[in-house]
Amino acid sequence: VKESGLSISATEKGGYRHFMLKEIYEQPQALTDTWQGRLSVDDILASSIGTDAEALLSQVEAIHIVACGTSYHAGLVARYWLEAMARIPCNVELASEYRYRNPVVPKNCLFVTLSQSGETADTLAALRYAKDLPQGQGYLATLAVCNKPESSLTRESDLVMMTRAGPEIGVASTKAFTTQLLCLLLLTGMLDRDAQKRGHLAADIRKIHTAVSQVLELDDAIRHLAEEFVDKQHALFLGRGPMYPIAMEGALKLKEISYLHAEAYAAGELKHGPLALVDENMPVIAVAPKNDWLEKVKSNLQEVSARGGKLYVFADADAGLNTGPGMTVLDMPHVDDTLAPIAYTVPLQLLAYHVAVAKGTDVDQPRNLAKSVTVE
Amino acid sequence: VKESGLSISATEKGGYRHFMLKEIYEQPQALTDTWQGRLSVDDILASSIGTDAEALLSQVEAIHIVACGTSYHAGLVARYWLEAMARIPCNVELASEYRYRNPVVPKNCLFVTLSQSGETADTLAALRYAKDLPQGQGYLATLAVCNKPESSLTRESDLVMMTRAGPEIGVASTKAFTTQLLCLLLLTGMLDRDAQKRGHLAADIRKIHTAVSQVLELDDAIRHLAEEFVDKQHALFLGRGPMYPIAMEGALKLKEISYLHAEAYAAGELKHGPLALVDENMPVIAVAPKNDWLEKVKSNLQEVSARGGKLYVFADADAGLNTGPGMTVLDMPHVDDTLAPIAYTVPLQLLAYHVAVAKGTDVDQPRNLAKSVTVE
Repeated sequence: VKESGLSISATEKGGYRHFMLKEIYEQPQALTDTWQGRLSVDDILASSIGTDAEALLSQVEAIHIVACGTSYHAGLVARYWLEAMARIPCNVELASEYRYRNPVVPKNCLFVTLSQSGETADTLAALRYAKDLPQGQGYLATLAVCNKPESSLTRESDLVMMTRAGPEIGVASTKAFTTQLLCLLLLTGMLDRDAQKRGHLAADIRKIHTAVSQVLELDDAIRHLAEEFVDKQHALFLGRGPMYPIAMEGALKLKEISYLHAEAYAAGELKHGPLALVDENMPVIAVAPKNDWLEKVKSNLQEVSARGGKLYVFADADAGLNTGPGMTVLDMPHVDDTLAPIAYTVPLQLLAYHVAVAKGTDVDQPRNLAKSVTVE
Repeated sequence: VKESGLSISATEKGGYRHFMLKEIYEQPQALTDTWQGRLSVDDILASSIGTDAEALLSQVEAIHIVACGTSYHAGLVARYWLEAMARIPCNVELASEYRYRNPVVPKNCLFVTLSQSGETADTLAALRYAKDLPQGQGYLATLAVCNKPESSLTRESDLVMMTRAGPEIGVASTKAFTTQLLCLLLLTGMLDRDAQKRGHLAADIRKIHTAVSQVLELDDAIRHLAEEFVDKQHALFLGRGPMYPIAMEGALKLKEISYLHAEAYAAGELKHGPLALVDENMPVIAVAPKNDWLEKVKSNLQEVSARGGKLYVFADADAGLNTGPGMTVLDMPHVDDTLAPIAYTVPLQLLAYHVAVAKGTDVDQPRNLAKSVTVE
């Protein structure tokens, strides 16, 4: 009798070496699951998150999003969407800061929390703080975007939009983040008063499975690229517009599991300080989809090159950026503007993963960190 | 005939080795100059920034602050003040991001720009964008906080509040930043509807010369401390509440002139990622005035100690924090809550300065950076 060499946890990994990699690959399906039942042929259905959701959302005049860590980055992306598309003023804040600063609540403001576990201590405490505000100084309603049903956050919120990512085991969040982004994109659509724009957005969202699957095909190229980061101590991540928070999320992944000191900057801020750090030991990673910011991003990349910085750019294949001295370009498939933050997250997840594997760190259980932070 | 060995620039440095050090030491006077004529015995005088300022400010229901680099950090501090004290909702944004994202402007919103030179390209372009918004979608008025009279920013704004820092030569901004903070504190007072609170604030502000002069007495101790950073590559800066942006500013100074990769975090966010980076090679610098956040900050410092991180804390002498294994505490004089962001900036400036001097970098002219960024 020869016993199987597979442990239970290996079986659960479904053939993947780590949960994180499995969870990265589950994203096309998790994203599809997340929009299912929330779109009609040409609209985004507020009714899918509750019978009274449509009436309630129609009253919303402002939004506060409160979250921690990776979820905070999803909120920062949503701010770009909610203001530019739905034209609703939006504030995004760290839960640990929000709770203690006596914030001002505008009229008819929706309070949105984001948390994979639904048990994040600071986020939950922020929700309770928001609900306890005196009559007339508080919020219109509360909405939780969460991955765990029956969590404290979902039980205590007026509205709930579940991310349908399934269990996430890796401490570094991947599919929970991209499905949060999709929920926030759906929320933006639900709040948009323009039916035609809602129809276009619904059509875009249906392409997400294809878009993310195409990006996953870059896996081998990114594994190869990762070798160049193994002996590095630092990295700068750059993005503009909604890709700035995506750069923040890419930097956080590299911090969490690869222990590189990676930091993100809005690319336009380079000249106001961080350019002093740029030399051959500080690789600079940029995300450059084909959008309104592209030419500005290119000129920021020039600033880095002129100072001898080494660039790694995830760029739309039609962005006009090519590998050359000091710059390595990985061609991304073209994606719609609205989907770009989700699609461009994936190569940054893969980069952090492969750097961690090459360095031999404990990918699924990085040092000093817990999966859900249930203490303040 | 023996010619003087002093160059003109040395004379202008008034005996200081670098302009930056001179400018750090000019802060007590620059801050006093900045509030002079703007306070009565028990009030803060909106009329000091223009005859129609009082009428105009009484209409303000929201504030947008737009800036770059160090000035952006001043704006982030002001948000805490404006919301908690004047109860006016406030958004703070990087100029290079604001311009391109189609932001929503709330009713009766004051647009505030911050720039030492008044010629910062992105900030100036943001002002022009804000002024060009269609009737009914734009701002109530524009206010510039600026150090250079007759600059583009002051010429093109409805209201101007000058920082009276005098010429700032060092590329790394010091006295321009603290005087910006003071202007924003004055603005908060001008917008506060509560006369008694305005009176208290006016009394606090009169103490700024004494408070900052006392902090400057730590110079020798900080120069000694700086030796421990000479061989370091990284640093984390921590703060909570209005001290979070001060931590950001401290990290930026160390980046700009000492070329250390320093990054700031809201202390409550440590557990959501950056704690993975903490080890004996990553010194952690924290600011801990005696305020409502102190106990929370202390528990965050515990998290760092428990992971073997080495702590350097600028703490109120009565904060109950003492030097011991893994933690060096520099006692700060007690300052009023409202003045703490200004007072706690000073030791972080001195730290960056002394690390740079010890490393032998060009303090007043750091590599890759210009004093005013007049290109986008």
